[in-house]
Amino acid sequence: MRIHGDKFKDECGVFGIAGHVDAARHAYLGLYGLQHRGQESAGIVSSDGVRLHRERGMGYVADVFSPEVLERLVGTFALGHVRYSTYGESTSANAQPILTESWRGPIAIAHNGNLVNAAQLRHQLEAEGAIFQSTSDTEVVLHLLARSSEENLDAALLDVLRFVRGAFSLLLLTPTRLYAIRDPYVVRPLCFGQMNGGHVVASETCAFDLIGAKYIRDVKPGEILSIGDDGLRSLTLGSSERRAHCIFEHVYFSRPDSLVFERSVHQSRHEMGRELALECPVAADVVVPVPDSGVTAALGYAEASGIPFDFGLIRNHYEGRTFIEPRQSIRHFGVKVKLNPVKRILSGRRVILIDDSIVRGTTSRKIVEMVRNAGASEVHLRISSPPTVGPCYYGIDTPTSSELIANNKTVRQIEEFTRADSLGYLSIEGLRKAVDAGSHFCSACFDQQYPIPLRIDSIQKELFEDGAETDATVEKAL
Amino acid sequence: MRIHGDKFKDECGVFGIAGHVDAARHAYLGLYGLQHRGQESAGIVSSDGVRLHRERGMGYVADVFSPEVLERLVGTFALGHVRYSTYGESTSANAQPILTESWRGPIAIAHNGNLVNAAQLRHQLEAEGAIFQSTSDTEVVLHLLARSSEENLDAALLDVLRFVRGAFSLLLLTPTRLYAIRDPYVVRPLCFGQMNGGHVVASETCAFDLIGAKYIRDVKPGEILSIGDDGLRSLTLGSSERRAHCIFEHVYFSRPDSLVFERSVHQSRHEMGRELALECPVAADVVVPVPDSGVTAALGYAEASGIPFDFGLIRNHYEGRTFIEPRQSIRHFGVKVKLNPVKRILSGRRVILIDDSIVRGTTSRKIVEMVRNAGASEVHLRISSPPTVGPCYYGIDTPTSSELIANNKTVRQIEEFTRADSLGYLSIEGLRKAVDAGSHFCSACFDQQYPIPLRIDSIQKELFEDGAETDATVEKAL
Amino acid sequence: MRIHGDKFKDECGVFGIAGHVDAARHAYLGLYGLQHRGQESAGIVSSDGVRLHRERGMGYVADVFSPEVLERLVGTFALGHVRYSTYGESTSANAQPILTESWRGPIAIAHNGNLVNAAQLRHQLEAEGAIFQSTSDTEVVLHLLARSSEENLDAALLDVLRFVRGAFSLLLLTPTRLYAIRDPYVVRPLCFGQMNGGHVVASETCAFDLIGAKYIRDVKPGEILSIGDDGLRSLTLGSSERRAHCIFEHVYFSRPDSLVFERSVHQSRHEMGRELALECPVAADVVVPVPDSGVTAALGYAEASGIPFDFGLIRNHYEGRTFIEPRQSIRHFGVKVKLNPVKRILSGRRVILIDDSIVRGTTSRKIVEMVRNAGASEVHLRISSPPTVGPCYYGIDTPTSSELIANNKTVRQIEEFTRADSLGYLSIEGLRKAVDAGSHFCSACFDQQYPIPLRIDSIQKELFEDGAETDATVEKAL
Amino acid sequence: MRIHGDKFKDECGVFGIAGHVDAARHAYLGLYGLQHRGQESAGIVSSDGVRLHRERGMGYVADVFSPEVLERLVGTFALGHVRYSTYGESTSANAQPILTESWRGPIAIAHNGNLVNAAQLRHQLEAEGAIFQSTSDTEVVLHLLARSSEENLDAALLDVLRFVRGAFSLLLLTPTRLYAIRDPYVVRPLCFGQMNGGHVVASETCAFDLIGAKYIRDVKPGEILSIGDDGLRSLTLGSSERRAHCIFEHVYFSRPDSLVFERSVHQSRHEMGRELALECPVAADVVVPVPDSGVTAALGYAEASGIPFDFGLIRNHYEGRTFIEPRQSIRHFGVKVKLNPVKRILSGRRVILIDDSIVRGTTSRKIVEMVRNAGASEVHLRISSPPTVGPCYYGIDTPTSSELIANNKTVRQIEEFTRADSLGYLSIEGLRKAVDAGSHFCSACFDQQYPIPLRIDSIQKELFEDGAETDATVEKAL
Repeated sequence: MRIHGDKFKDECGVFGIAGHVDAARHAYLGLYGLQHRGQESAGIVSSDGVRLHRERGMGYVADVFSPEVLERLVGTFALGHVRYSTYGESTSANAQPILTESWRGPIAIAHNGNLVNAAQLRHQLEAEGAIFQSTSDTEVVLHLLARSSEENLDAALLDVLRFVRGAFSLLLLTPTRLYAIRDPYVVRPLCFGQMNGGHVVASETCAFDLIGAKYIRDVKPGEILSIGDDGLRSLTLGSSERRAHCIFEHVYFSRPDSLVFERSVHQSRHEMGRELALECPVAADVVVPVPDSGVTAALGYAEASGIPFDFGLIRNHYEGRTFIEPRQSIRHFGVKVKLNPVKRILSGRRVILIDDSIVRGTTSRKIVEMVRNAGASEVHLRISSPPTVGPCYYGIDTPTSSELIANNKTVRQIEEFTRADSLGYLSIEGLRKAVDAGSHFCSACFDQQYPIPLRIDSIQKELFEDGAETDATVEKAL
Repeated sequence: MRIHGDKFKDECGVFGIAGHVDAARHAYLGLYGLQHRGQESAGIVSSDGVRLHRERGMGYVADVFSPEVLERLVGTFALGHVRYSTYGESTSANAQPILTESWRGPIAIAHNGNLVNAAQLRHQLEAEGAIFQSTSDTEVVLHLLARSSEENLDAALLDVLRFVRGAFSLLLLTPTRLYAIRDPYVVRPLCFGQMNGGHVVASETCAFDLIGAKYIRDVKPGEILSIGDDGLRSLTLGSSERRAHCIFEHVYFSRPDSLVFERSVHQSRHEMGRELALECPVAADVVVPVPDSGVTAALGYAEASGIPFDFGLIRNHYEGRTFIEPRQSIRHFGVKVKLNPVKRILSGRRVILIDDSIVRGTTSRKIVEMVRNAGASEVHLRISSPPTVGPCYYGIDTPTSSELIANNKTVRQIEEFTRADSLGYLSIEGLRKAVDAGSHFCSACFDQQYPIPLRIDSIQKELFEDGAETDATVEKAL
Repeated sequence: MRIHGDKFKDECGVFGIAGHVDAARHAYLGLYGLQHRGQESAGIVSSDGVRLHRERGMGYVADVFSPEVLERLVGTFALGHVRYSTYGESTSANAQPILTESWRGPIAIAHNGNLVNAAQLRHQLEAEGAIFQSTSDTEVVLHLLARSSEENLDAALLDVLRFVRGAFSLLLLTPTRLYAIRDPYVVRPLCFGQMNGGHVVASETCAFDLIGAKYIRDVKPGEILSIGDDGLRSLTLGSSERRAHCIFEHVYFSRPDSLVFERSVHQSRHEMGRELALECPVAADVVVPVPDSGVTAALGYAEASGIPFDFGLIRNHYEGRTFIEPRQSIRHFGVKVKLNPVKRILSGRRVILIDDSIVRGTTSRKIVEMVRNAGASEVHLRISSPPTVGPCYYGIDTPTSSELIANNKTVRQIEEFTRADSLGYLSIEGLRKAVDAGSHFCSACFDQQYPIPLRIDSIQKELFEDGAETDATVEKAL
Repeated sequence: MRIHGDKFKDECGVFGIAGHVDAARHAYLGLYGLQHRGQESAGIVSSDGVRLHRERGMGYVADVFSPEVLERLVGTFALGHVRYSTYGESTSANAQPILTESWRGPIAIAHNGNLVNAAQLRHQLEAEGAIFQSTSDTEVVLHLLARSSEENLDAALLDVLRFVRGAFSLLLLTPTRLYAIRDPYVVRPLCFGQMNGGHVVASETCAFDLIGAKYIRDVKPGEILSIGDDGLRSLTLGSSERRAHCIFEHVYFSRPDSLVFERSVHQSRHEMGRELALECPVAADVVVPVPDSGVTAALGYAEASGIPFDFGLIRNHYEGRTFIEPRQSIRHFGVKVKLNPVKRILSGRRVILIDDSIVRGTTSRKIVEMVRNAGASEVHLRISSPPTVGPCYYGIDTPTSSELIANNKTVRQIEEFTRADSLGYLSIEGLRKAVDAGSHFCSACFDQQYPIPLRIDSIQKELFEDGAETDATVEKAL
């Protein structure tokens, strides 16, 4: 049995380093710092200036890379990727970075996000005779690059990325350059930093802390950072007026010790908890987080409500691996492997249970039951984000609409389903306030307002009819 | 690089199950629940009623046991063990359970604790021609059993254990019986429970929660529980008037969700924090635990002091494994791999940092520096136990006296060494109060009052001169 | 240290099975029977009628496939491949079968041979925007198929394979059909058989023996066998008048218990030995083969010469794996790990040493020295094929011309280099006679007569200018 | 499925080296040369002069030892062992070398042979309170050493080994000395050699060839070679007048390129074949060995009979590993995985099939059928040793008497069982002649004349009653 919470899954974390004598080992450490963004495969490609070297495998960063494996990743450039995926060899073909050869020579690519027109592009590329080694979006970009007649890769990227729609925090590695690219809507995070004269990029700043790199700034909307031994160039795909930072990064995905979208994740979560206390107060004895994701919001809730915070559920730290189940099934085994109640905190108490989100609701029901069995007299469930009603098309692995409990039930019905004494969600306004966000965030999973159109037929037409001759400026194309 | 905190190391966790159709898988899950007590080797022995089957290996429980390996552990009795140890094959010989054959047939043994007269016994046994496969204390007990002329194992245990001094929570398995034994001083924990008509024993109750077993009571001082298909017998080695529960179990080793010595570990730690706040107050903006061990005490401190609690240091959850270090060493790499500061919480704040203990002091110094580098204006270090001055001889892996910083420096000197703005320890009285303990606890690591004599020459003499004829009652012997 | 003899390396072995309930396990056994054709990676793709499943890895067939791995290869069709390659992840990308998606859906391919115009085709495909995941020839075929406008795969294969030149024993698998294809020159072997109503194809008949399949016939020159649940279709690319069976299959690559090109390999080698005895006689006491490849020819030599045969060199059967070398190098360690002399046979004797070929000559020199050190009074080296002067462009991994000793030295100079008392090679005529071959064989490695032109520019031009409209019949194209 | 022939199994191979800077790597290579003597576990213990270091594991030498593992085996002394055993952890406890501590300090031991009074000794030791970690004979010796009051290990060995009966080629390692010991009957082989000033001992000389060591002589009957940095001492247990070299070493176990008992194994086998041709002639077209064990005898048979020799059965060289069987069983799968017929040699021919022995007869029957199915008109089975009627008690793993076909059937009945057209065995006289052996060999497996008494009650009595006071000279005791 593989133990996963009933959570949205982040698709990936990416890390790149250029101009460092110990590039692969730093990529390894950077990926280790991003392990929470993807725990099922890990890969690194390095460049020695002439050739690219790849190592990847299923499992944790610390298991995939041994000293011998890192030894083979020679060179001063490296690119790394961690991701979620499902089992089996078919998916090891999807493990990133992807590495291909074309007339441009070898290129490796690692991606966090999702291209909304990838299926269309793929369909058209296939119609023109392209063959694919994976089901990853990312391969589409490599095909487009191979088709572009621009000799120079900087120019080729400008040429082809205007046809790509969606959320993309992309890293590319050639034998001599590292590219860090972000979509004009800046949906997924991508940070830029420096260390010992080298340059680093990563999904979150916590990857910098471990290696002692200094955070400089985020990669900008529509920016292409092109990093070589000759230094750094910044190109632009043009930027959208609309910013669409993924608000769920602040709700759940990112680590609280990271700066994401130039804002402290901890601060956002703390504020979510405070807002939640104001919006959904209840008389109780203790505020208990569902660890680890509910912790910061629970602290905020406790602070705003004046009700004491305590760790009434202990998370098992060796969780996350495959588990062998007993032959006779144990009731709520999946939740028990992750969490254990502290009876002394819960027994005879009115408990406010704080979680960051409810996806299918089944896990929440089990946790409520676990807390009640530990003796709680009342269990009030409080969620530090609004009901999740919309699937994500920008790089998050969400269940289908029909599986999202909030899509099918009212808050009162969910309350009943979870058997909590009461249930309260943070409002969308409260959430926006907590991230101090105005219109900068995408919250489609909560409000189904999708900032990036999901079908863009006209663009494709242009691309495949006379992609080469188009003089449409990048700004216009967007 | 192997990442370990600068902490005392618990020697082991033990788990036993009798009369259950799925014994080995439940032992596996029980050990998983005890993983925090030993992360370097794991082993299980099962009995099918006739023969014993053993599987063990270096590493985490989840890594040592695959479905195929568990498949080989047939039978309705099982015994498991997790432990710390150092590297190399020499120590895999020390991995428990130990399994030997003698005229009594096969016996497996798993042990948490330390026999203070093991070296003497071993010396005398060797002088009589005994050969040893390991350096473990536990093997001494098997030799004594093999030398005892008592046909019946119950009687033999009574016969030989009176010569054994120290802390021992022992499990033995023969083809038809499971034994759970605790020394008269009840130094190390050992709990007894039931599930589906079967019986279980474990170092901590958290191992019961996962498998849905019900905690019944602790194994009593000097008790030998003998469990077979015919049910349960309780024998007694006699009990000491002095109880000597290891107070460090409540300070650090045990999980807060466990009952240990029939008291909630969470409650003890929370009280430690409260007492600490009373004893060592300081004006500050935030109370920050060194996770995970400092968390509960920090909550108590915050509650008693009225200063807000927050997670200013994030623990990396994939920690604990071997790490590949960068070629150019990164400053404080070992601490960075474990912990990362949340700048937003620490920056510009007066921080009270709560940890459970200081052993060598080097790690504390690095953490203080990390917090200060994250912008803290003041760093006040508070320790929820007294200075550790005495090595443990009852089953804990402590550094030598000379390595214990509190043995060589005053509190003021340690404050200086750690570069904290101030340092405060909980007093021994405060600690005792927190565990509500009177004289029931051993606190030799704090006060060097060793409740079990460390040399007992006369007993040995008797044992080896005419061990067979002695009719000394057990009570007298103790 | 990896131990390899100084031999030409066969590139691959292929195996396919259609319409069998236990397809993957039979593919596994078939590959095991072909293990001598490639020992560095192995892979199987199966089809369940809808989807393809792939498993592959570096190492021996028996090491790559566990029961769990085979379990994942569901379905009644399967395709397998063993190959040589060099180390590292870059080459695991080259491990076959290759599996891609295009508008035709998923196709897997496994290949034994070499396309002489692969580089040209690749160059042109890349110029048109194709991207490649491997450096394998085989991927070119998949690109051509994806570019072909023929809806039906049978038709598409006819369409594109006329542009492909070289040696190709190709297997393709779609979700519903297995294809077995052989170039018009029939350079590399490919046999067709049946078992339990299912169909099988394999590089050599020895793969059939193990699974109890019945050999029916060879796949014909230019034949495309298309095998589905609806039975078997035979299409033709047209056949060349010139047959160009690789004569080295009979000299060295194939197993003596196989029928290859419808002739017993054992018989050919035995005849080579007989011819060699007639052409290069010498007075001696014993005929000793360099095992295993020299054994059959040595038996023929002994028979024809009347000089007794004996095993004066023992081959170490655990050879072929990676070896750890001693720190102080041992003289001729590489040869000693493979072979050990039997002093009693060699001492004081005039020895005729029979090997199948000499490539660089260095190993031969070491073996001659080993035999002499074991006491041989004379060492006469006899080679059961002519001097190897031509690199192979049809699927064999040969050193460059400059490394081929026979390209740089006369037979007398090689004799001197090897320090043999005399050296004799079989003549090209003797070899042809031994394989009973007339003009049916390619012996370019011995005579540099390359039957398939190495550059075919005009064809490429046609393919890329108006590949779609061509109505050239297949026969004409060839 | 694990593939093994129907053969007697050799129990072990041993290797020791003293005074060499690269001891562990040479032990590794030595064991590799002895791999045919035991393929299921391998282990090495090294000494750095103070401490012993052990590494061992299940599987082939090349799989158990990686460079990292060998790195841990520091020091200039090493001891190695390969053995057969069955699966499971219970037996990994039996993997040698065994390493124990006693008042003498650490001692490692590796053993080839069997102590006929081990069970009795063990019983008595257990009665006195000894505990055992394995079921190996070898552990008994360590217990006796621990009980001996002789301070000096040389003296202690003389003291205790007189009580041990059976076949023992024993190696012991202490931190400063390597011991090589052979029983007075010299049942199992043990050779002594030198290299670069260091000393080596091994079961067979082929282990010396690989590392370039020079064979000096066999360890003598009853000799104890004691090797330290101060050089070599030879002690004697006394020698038996009766020599009892295991004749099966020459029939099957040893490699033909080894000197065993100071005689070429190849020569013995060749003579066996010659004798067999004289004793059991038959008109036929070809002499075909069952490879590899029948090869040398077949050459002798062919030479003496004038009938041509050929390899009508090809052995699969990747054999010996675990195999995954097809779901629908394939007829004679076990034999097919090992052997494949060469139809061209067998078809229409009268075949003489040469094997070294028949144990249960089932494999022989399958091979006869395989040869007949390949088209042989007649199959005459000839065995280069007499019928095996007696189990071995001196270190060979033989089936029970009831499983030995020759114990239950006459030669005519075995002929019928195997379905051979005729069956002939070499006579015991022929065998003795072939090994040129007079009375020097033990041939109990053929004639049930056991040279070492299987029960020696009186000795045990002495040992356990007043072992310490006995002044019986060693010579008398034997």
